[in-house]
Amino acid sequence: MTKSLGPKTLIYPAPVLVVGTYDKAGKPNVMTASWGGICCSQPPCVAVSLRKVTYTHGNILEREAFTISIPPEKYVKEVDYFGLATGRSIDKFAATKLTPVKSTLVDAPYVKEFPLVLECKLVHVIELGLHTQFVGEVIDAKADESIIGDGGAIDVRKLKPLVFTPDTQDYYGIGKFVAKVFSAGKDI
Amino acid sequence: MTKSLGPKTLIYPAPVLVVGTYDKAGKPNVMTASWGGICCSQPPCVAVSLRKVTYTHGNILEREAFTISIPPEKYVKEVDYFGLATGRSIDKFAATKLTPVKSTLVDAPYVKEFPLVLECKLVHVIELGLHTQFVGEVIDAKADESIIGDGGAIDVRKLKPLVFTPDTQDYYGIGKFVAKVFSAGKDI
Repeated sequence: MTKSLGPKTLIYPAPVLVVGTYDKAGKPNVMTASWGGICCSQPPCVAVSLRKVTYTHGNILEREAFTISIPPEKYVKEVDYFGLATGRSIDKFAATKLTPVKSTLVDAPYVKEFPLVLECKLVHVIELGLHTQFVGEVIDAKADESIIGDGGAIDVRKLKPLVFTPDTQDYYGIGKFVAKVFSAGKDI
Repeated sequence: MTKSLGPKTLIYPAPVLVVGTYDKAGKPNVMTASWGGICCSQPPCVAVSLRKVTYTHGNILEREAFTISIPPEKYVKEVDYFGLATGRSIDKFAATKLTPVKSTLVDAPYVKEFPLVLECKLVHVIELGLHTQFVGEVIDAKADESIIGDGGAIDVRKLKPLVFTPDTQDYYGIGKFVAKVFSAGKDI
């Protein structure tokens, strides 16, 4: 530990989350966010933090719902665009030719082409500073059969999620299997 | 989206975080957690969620501080052990022969052998259910020079962080560079 980098939020890996919402008029919107993660097992909850200036911030407060789609590597261009453009003036679905699907469980849309989505009901809004943290209870997770492995669980090698690297601001892919959890450390 | 998986917290990738704390008696402890991530840029904050039964949960409330070390792939065995054993009855540093270092900025230790650490002051405690979310303000990030790239930023290929896959409960590594953020989507 020889170098002090200052107060920086350097957590590796950070996820690449596509947050789906409806605006007041019912227009579906998506934005990409990396400040977030799993935050509770029971009730099952995930968190995503957004700046107040984002269009999605207002949409979540208005509709009290959002979806989180996990985009695969091959859609990196669209995903990056979702983080660059604003839904205030642009229809991001039209611009990328991706398809909004209305969730039947929560008041929010998701991206049909992305193989994993969490449908979330807003349960907590926590003001942290520049970012507001939205905690959503997962009402259902839906997956395309193409990413389900032989054992019935999601196979990350089929999902091919993106990784965000905070300091260099790059997208990376997922690498090789390293070990089983609660197994590798048993012989210490 | 053909298969409903039920209310599961399936965010990919999830990080592998080693949380360092002191107990009442001053014994350094570490535990591994994957429910967490970055949650605010200003002030710079990270979140980690822990069950109330963990030893670390009480330590954070007592000391109002914790560290988050990002362990590299080669320490997967020790990292997994940190998630299996409890600091209530075991000295995990002694068991793994890893070295606790006292932070000079916050009242918590970190793991000398891990090349990246965030020193955090507790700023929010949010009860979510089974898990309590601890939000820490990052007072400093420290990195070993071995993980700093040519441009002065952390090179994820040198850091080699672990990835946790929620559904199968495996550790994976980081894969290949895919694209630059705020660049790949510019031509849409």
